[in-house]
Amino acid sequence: MTTDRLIYLPLGGAGEIGMNAYVYGYGKPGEERLILVDIGVAFPDMDTTPGVDLIFADISWLEERKEQLEAVFITHAHEDHVGAIGHLYERLGMPKVYARAFTANIARGKLAEYGVGDSAVTVVSPWTEQVMAGPFRVGFLPISHSIPESSALVIDSPEGRVIHTGDFKLDATPLVGEAFDEDLWREVAAPGVRALVCDSTNVFSKHPGRSEAVVGPEITRLVNQSSGMFVATTFASNVARVKTLADAGEAAGRSIVLLGRAMRRMIEASIKTGVLSSFPPVVPPEDAKDIPRENLMLIVTGSQGERRAASAQLARGKHMGLSMKEGDTFLFSSKTIPGNEKGVIHIINSFSEMGVDVVDDNDGLYHVSGHANRPDLERMHDIVNPQIVVPMHGEHRHLREHTKLAEEKRRRGVLAVNGTMVSLSGNAPEVVEYVETGRTYLDGSVQIGALDGIVRDRIRMALNGHVTVTVVLDEEDEPLGDPWCDIMGLPEVGRSRAALQEVLEEDLSQFLNRAGQKTLSDDEKIEEALRRVVRQSAQDEIGKKPEVTVVVSRLT
Amino acid sequence: MTTDRLIYLPLGGAGEIGMNAYVYGYGKPGEERLILVDIGVAFPDMDTTPGVDLIFADISWLEERKEQLEAVFITHAHEDHVGAIGHLYERLGMPKVYARAFTANIARGKLAEYGVGDSAVTVVSPWTEQVMAGPFRVGFLPISHSIPESSALVIDSPEGRVIHTGDFKLDATPLVGEAFDEDLWREVAAPGVRALVCDSTNVFSKHPGRSEAVVGPEITRLVNQSSGMFVATTFASNVARVKTLADAGEAAGRSIVLLGRAMRRMIEASIKTGVLSSFPPVVPPEDAKDIPRENLMLIVTGSQGERRAASAQLARGKHMGLSMKEGDTFLFSSKTIPGNEKGVIHIINSFSEMGVDVVDDNDGLYHVSGHANRPDLERMHDIVNPQIVVPMHGEHRHLREHTKLAEEKRRRGVLAVNGTMVSLSGNAPEVVEYVETGRTYLDGSVQIGALDGIVRDRIRMALNGHVTVTVVLDEEDEPLGDPWCDIMGLPEVGRSRAALQEVLEEDLSQFLNRAGQKTLSDDEKIEEALRRVVRQSAQDEIGKKPEVTVVVSRLT
Repeated sequence: MTTDRLIYLPLGGAGEIGMNAYVYGYGKPGEERLILVDIGVAFPDMDTTPGVDLIFADISWLEERKEQLEAVFITHAHEDHVGAIGHLYERLGMPKVYARAFTANIARGKLAEYGVGDSAVTVVSPWTEQVMAGPFRVGFLPISHSIPESSALVIDSPEGRVIHTGDFKLDATPLVGEAFDEDLWREVAAPGVRALVCDSTNVFSKHPGRSEAVVGPEITRLVNQSSGMFVATTFASNVARVKTLADAGEAAGRSIVLLGRAMRRMIEASIKTGVLSSFPPVVPPEDAKDIPRENLMLIVTGSQGERRAASAQLARGKHMGLSMKEGDTFLFSSKTIPGNEKGVIHIINSFSEMGVDVVDDNDGLYHVSGHANRPDLERMHDIVNPQIVVPMHGEHRHLREHTKLAEEKRRRGVLAVNGTMVSLSGNAPEVVEYVETGRTYLDGSVQIGALDGIVRDRIRMALNGHVTVTVVLDEEDEPLGDPWCDIMGLPEVGRSRAALQEVLEEDLSQFLNRAGQKTLSDDEKIEEALRRVVRQSAQDEIGKKPEVTVVVSRLT
Repeated sequence: MTTDRLIYLPLGGAGEIGMNAYVYGYGKPGEERLILVDIGVAFPDMDTTPGVDLIFADISWLEERKEQLEAVFITHAHEDHVGAIGHLYERLGMPKVYARAFTANIARGKLAEYGVGDSAVTVVSPWTEQVMAGPFRVGFLPISHSIPESSALVIDSPEGRVIHTGDFKLDATPLVGEAFDEDLWREVAAPGVRALVCDSTNVFSKHPGRSEAVVGPEITRLVNQSSGMFVATTFASNVARVKTLADAGEAAGRSIVLLGRAMRRMIEASIKTGVLSSFPPVVPPEDAKDIPRENLMLIVTGSQGERRAASAQLARGKHMGLSMKEGDTFLFSSKTIPGNEKGVIHIINSFSEMGVDVVDDNDGLYHVSGHANRPDLERMHDIVNPQIVVPMHGEHRHLREHTKLAEEKRRRGVLAVNGTMVSLSGNAPEVVEYVETGRTYLDGSVQIGALDGIVRDRIRMALNGHVTVTVVLDEEDEPLGDPWCDIMGLPEVGRSRAALQEVLEEDLSQFLNRAGQKTLSDDEKIEEALRRVVRQSAQDEIGKKPEVTVVVSRLT
């Protein structure tokens, strides 16, 4: 009798959109051999993570078990699936990485930044090739999405077959990459599937998803109607869309310019790995100024309003020698991800000031989603017909709704958020452990924990400002001269119309003159007391309690 | 021959949504007698205004001319139209304020916070009453919106009639307050209107606006279908909606509880001023726990995810003794204002974790906008048939689109953003001056300028962290002991695996030991040099250049 079990443990992506990282294991409890599916990033924001560069899943659990880790499999090359591979590779024990050619190209670029050679990533052909990884056999089953060569993973274990969809849509005409092949999927599912671990991001979208092919004619029409320079932005990794835009431009007799490193990088990778067999000739930005603007089409990065990307640069003025003006058209062939609205709107208003006509996707003409909507998810459930549906990649509301959807058809749904270890063995799935999970921040060049308090302190300074108090004490613990304050991020003058700095210094001075030996001889006591004086005094003057650093210098 | 002119000068609201403040003047250039229409606030965000409490239009121009200011007119009681009246009243020279009864009630509450008595605000009856204000005669012409007693202003001057719409929609069945009365409007417009100064916020919405009356049946259906506790949030000031929700709850046999100060305040003001003749009986929150949850309906503040409002409190757990659980329903009878998505989504996910069913307005069933959509704007233009259309209240893109809309019908449109003084005299409108405008922040209890650098410093600390460097020099400018560092908001350990603080102190120490008398004797030089050392050293260690405060203490 064996006590081996098949486990599923999301470390990231199950409870948020982004930061995907899913562990599968098989073996005796605590000794399972493990594989990791995807290792992505999430993006910081000013509200919760000011100054942070990138966000990863906390992989401590896996790091402690890196000897058990057989391999990492990357489903596709989006940042939220592959973005952390370089940053976390060493902590993962430098495991084998498997991906399809295009994804491998991107992953290798990320590893190279950490000095890791190309051989770390092994290219896998699409199904029916299978890779052995400990007790698992893993194959890459093509599925349509918004980036080339997206694949579901067919994960065979002694407990049966699991299909991990990765991100997907059901697109029969994706333009670039493989179409969704229902017959192939039925064939793969035919032997029986224990669990379908399934993308949840669009579960609230009620209508069937639309094919990438529908936007081409609309874009072509728009380009043909336009007179000045035509500029379009989309997600750099949406190679099919970039090609559609370029084709429309070429057909209208326009020269194509790609602006933005990520955009060029993706097209190069597509051509190099063969996913893109043709692309219109591209003009370097520096040559574009010699071409009449009505014969130009720029395809640019920054559809989410990112400050440093080409769209934002053009909104601020000249970029790479190019600038926009009245009569030009700017198209968002993209949707705005929640949280990015203000940045995008800011760009639209800047273009408006220039007299540029901005076309967004409010009517759904110029963009389609890369994810399966509710009816598509139902169709996927029906095609694969698994015993268990495990919703992944989504916020809690998505996972919950997707679980309900599965249960409506009398399939067993499992709502497992990050850190929930589920056994997929036996007659019914079962939560066997809760693992501590969280987020790791890349802050400059250092990885810090989300709960380390570092970012919390920065947020506090942003909200409350900062005061440095310096006091010098002599050998007898007597103040030497007056204390002084340095103020950062606070109004200079408050209620009393005197300089805040002087008011604070005066109050500190009065306090020190009254303070007894017991306080003055104890660094902690004096710091605590001076902090309190500053905060109370500032509250009276400016209605704010600043963060305070007290520096006590003692002459000894 | 007279050189008198009629001018229009937006100080806020023309270039953004929020912060409305529009000046009209009549007289000789530079000596015009002035009136101010609305004096609202905008709300801060972490991206651009961390720690700020409220944002006002910069009224310096008006403050310098307060002797010329005849009166302030408030169109309606939304915060972005009346919110700054208390904060700026003194700076405006304590002018007369005119408003209709409900609006006056709210304005008086705000003035009372600054110790200003009720007599500052004069209640005006709806058209045909007219108030004399210098060369102007001003009347309040009822118009439908999403708050009681919204009014357009009919501003008569020696140069003719101007109609300032305020915020509006064309609603024949607004449930609370006056319906849009097309005949009355035609009558007012009949003598001829020189300029229509017109709300622009919804110019990109293509379909005619829907009446407040359409949401009632949908809400009633939803409440009747629900089994657990029913909680609904909407804008506190949308009295009609609050009443619709309460009526639906009462009809379903539920006891009504209002949660949130603003919600209760608005209902009280409505009853007191007679705009609401009936409202279902309300149960105090503390009595609600004795009522079975399936018989409860809470109507709560916080539809925009505001952290301190009732919705967010319920999402975090118990609030006023009430908490949500599986089987309850939470309805957003509101739309999410761009920029607030993350806060709202956070609440939805928290409720999802509790098993609460959240119903949002993605299908448009449970909310209608309070603003005129594109076809409504066209209808308004046609009814009033002005010589000039001046789009106001909108971002640049809205004003531009609205200007185009006016010009499509061969009316003259004027795109005037904040600070653009337009003469409405003579044969054609003309920009006569650009006035410096901007934003004022209420920061704690102090008003600061947006460009004062205070908030910029806070943002920098949030992005980069902060280091305090202290060095003590003796009478001969020699360092007394080693320099030391206090770190806030930075990783404790970097590349070298030694404590960042120690690395910085070591580098500072080495620098000081090498530094010459010329540097050491000059405070500015030494501060600049030490700042540079810290920033470079931190860059090497942690990949970040912090903000640095250098404190040099000299024993003299």
